Amino acid sequence: MDIKKRLIEEKNIVDNELHSVTGPLKPEILYDPVKYAVSMGGKRLRPILSRMINRMVGGSEEFIKHPSLAIELFHNFTLIHDDIMDNDDLRRGAETVHKKWDVSTGILSGDGIIGLAYETLMIKPYERMIEVIKVFTRGVIEVCEGQAYDKEFESRDDVVLDEYLVMIYKKTAALLKVSSEIGSIVGNGDKETTKLCGDYGEAIGMAFQIQDDLLDITADEAKLGKTFGSDTCEGKKTFLYIKAMEKLKGQDRERYLELIKKDGNTLSEIIEVKDIYTNSGVIEDTISEIKFWINKAYLTLKELSKNFDTEELEQFTDYLLNRDY
Amino acid sequence: MDIKKRLIEEKNIVDNELHSVTGPLKPEILYDPVKYAVSMGGKRLRPILSRMINRMVGGSEEFIKHPSLAIELFHNFTLIHDDIMDNDDLRRGAETVHKKWDVSTGILSGDGIIGLAYETLMIKPYERMIEVIKVFTRGVIEVCEGQAYDKEFESRDDVVLDEYLVMIYKKTAALLKVSSEIGSIVGNGDKETTKLCGDYGEAIGMAFQIQDDLLDITADEAKLGKTFGSDTCEGKKTFLYIKAMEKLKGQDRERYLELIKKDGNTLSEIIEVKDIYTNSGVIEDTISEIKFWINKAYLTLKELSKNFDTEELEQFTDYLLNRDY
Repeated sequence: MDIKKRLIEEKNIVDNELHSVTGPLKPEILYDPVKYAVSMGGKRLRPILSRMINRMVGGSEEFIKHPSLAIELFHNFTLIHDDIMDNDDLRRGAETVHKKWDVSTGILSGDGIIGLAYETLMIKPYERMIEVIKVFTRGVIEVCEGQAYDKEFESRDDVVLDEYLVMIYKKTAALLKVSSEIGSIVGNGDKETTKLCGDYGEAIGMAFQIQDDLLDITADEAKLGKTFGSDTCEGKKTFLYIKAMEKLKGQDRERYLELIKKDGNTLSEIIEVKDIYTNSGVIEDTISEIKFWINKAYLTLKELSKNFDTEELEQFTDYLLNRDY
Repeated sequence: MDIKKRLIEEKNIVDNELHSVTGPLKPEILYDPVKYAVSMGGKRLRPILSRMINRMVGGSEEFIKHPSLAIELFHNFTLIHDDIMDNDDLRRGAETVHKKWDVSTGILSGDGIIGLAYETLMIKPYERMIEVIKVFTRGVIEVCEGQAYDKEFESRDDVVLDEYLVMIYKKTAALLKVSSEIGSIVGNGDKETTKLCGDYGEAIGMAFQIQDDLLDITADEAKLGKTFGSDTCEGKKTFLYIKAMEKLKGQDRERYLELIKKDGNTLSEIIEVKDIYTNSGVIEDTISEIKFWINKAYLTLKELSKNFDTEELEQFTDYLLNRDY
C-alpha cells in the first residue's frame, strides 16, 4: 500500500483509540482541556512508529495499542507545558490550551495527561510491562532535560555543537527512540533488535530536527506552515547558528550577530542571513549533517532487514525525511 | 520509643535518602530547583506512613525505601505546581520555586520530579511492582482531579457537602491512602490488609484536612504557622463554609456572605465569622465530622490489630490528629 494512505489509515486508528481513553471523564474543568489538546490533531508519528516497529518484529496489534497511545499522550503533555514555557498562543492554527483557558489549566491538564499516559500504558497486561515503563520514564526525564537545555541556551551565546546535539537528542530524538524501543519490547524483540530499533528512532529524530532548523530558512513559507525565518527572528540556537558561530570571522561574524540579535528582522535581513549561511558553507554543512543521520537510519534498517521485513519502515523514512530544501 | 523521636528519626532517614536520588544530576537549570524544592523540608508524613505500614505487615526496609521516596517526590511535584496555580510566593517560610526562579522553571522542575518519582519507584525490583505503579498512577490522576475540583469551587457558590468531600478526598486523602496501600503491597500484604491500610490512610487524610479547615479559624496564630482566618479572607470553600451555607438563614446568612465575599477581612470581621460558626453550631458539626474520621481510623487499626502490631500507627494517629481546637 502507498505509504501516504497507510499513514492516514494509521492516524485514523490512533485518533479513534485516543478518544476512547480520554472519554467521559470528570471533572470537566480538567478533562475538557485534555480532550481539546489531544484532538488538536497532528500526524501521530510517534504512536505510528511504535506500531510499525511492533508489526515488523512480529508483535500483535492487541498489545501495542495502549502503549502506543500512551506515547502520544506523553507527547501531548510536553506540547501543552512547552507552549506555556515558550509563550506560544497557537499550535497548528488553533489556540493553545493555556491561551484558550489559562496557565493554571494548562499546567493541570498537562499533569493529568501524564497520569493518563501511565495509566494507559498499563490498561492491558503484556509480558515485559516493567521494561516498557522504565523506557517510557527515561523518556519523560530526558524530554524534561532537553527542554531545560533549550531554555538554558536562550540566554547563552557560547553553545557548542556537542551541547546542541545533546539538547535536540533529548528534546526531540529521545521520544522517537522510546517509541521505537517500546514497539520492539512489546513485540518481544530481543535486546539487539530493540537496540537497533532505538538507534533507528534516534537517527530519524535527529535528522528531522536538524531538517526543521534548515527548513526555517530555506523552505517556502507556504510549505513550512509557519513564518519564514522565525528561528532567526527569535535568535534561537539552531544547528545553523552553531555552525555560523564556528565558521564566521571578523566583519561577517559581527554583521551576523547584529542581525541575529535584532528583535523582529525584516524580510531583507532574513534573506541576508540566508545568504550568509549559503556563502559561508553553513547550509552545506547542515545538509551533510542531515544526510549523516538519514544514512544512519537506512543503515540501521539494513541491519534489521537481515531478520525482518523493513519495507514499510523504509517507505516511512523516505516519506518523513525527503522534504524540500 | 516516643513517637516524636521516632518521627524525627524517620524524617532524617527519608531526608538523607532523598538527597541520594536527586544527587549530582544535570542540567542544573532543571535539577537545582528540583533539589531546592525537595530540601525545603516538611514532615515527610507520606513516606513515613508507607514505611510504618510496611513494617507493620512485616515488609523489609530494603524494598519500601525507594517506593516511599517516590511518594515524597510525587508530593513535591504537586506542591510546586499547586503553588504556581494558587499564586503562592511562600511555602514553609521560604520562596516557592516559581517565585525564586520563574513559572517556566516551576512547571519544568515539577515535570522532572514526576519523572524522577516513577524512576525511583523502579530502582530496586520487588515482587508486586506493577500493582504499586498502578496504585501510584491512580494517585497522580486523583490528585490532579482534586486540584481541578478545588479550582472549580473557587468560582462557585453552590458547592454541596458531597462535592466538598470528593474534592478533599482526591486532593489530600488519596495520597495518604496510596502511601498506605503501597506500604502494604510492597510488604506483600494480602488484599484485605491492603484495603484496610488504604481505608486507614484515607480516614486520617480526611480528618487531617477538615482539621486544617477548622484550625484556620480556631487555632492561635502562633500554633498555626499561618495567618489566622486566611481561608475566610480568601473565601475558600471549606467544610465550615459548606456547613454554614447549609445552616444559616435570613439575615445571618446575608451577613455571613457579606463577610466571606469581602476582600481582606479585618481581625474583628474574622472574629465575627468565628462567632457565627460557633453560634450556628458549625464548629460543633465540624468537630463531629473530624471525630467521625478519627474514629474510623482507630476502628480500622483495631481491625488490623487482629493480625498485626498496630501500636506504632496508633501513636502516629494520636500524634497527627490530636491537635488543638
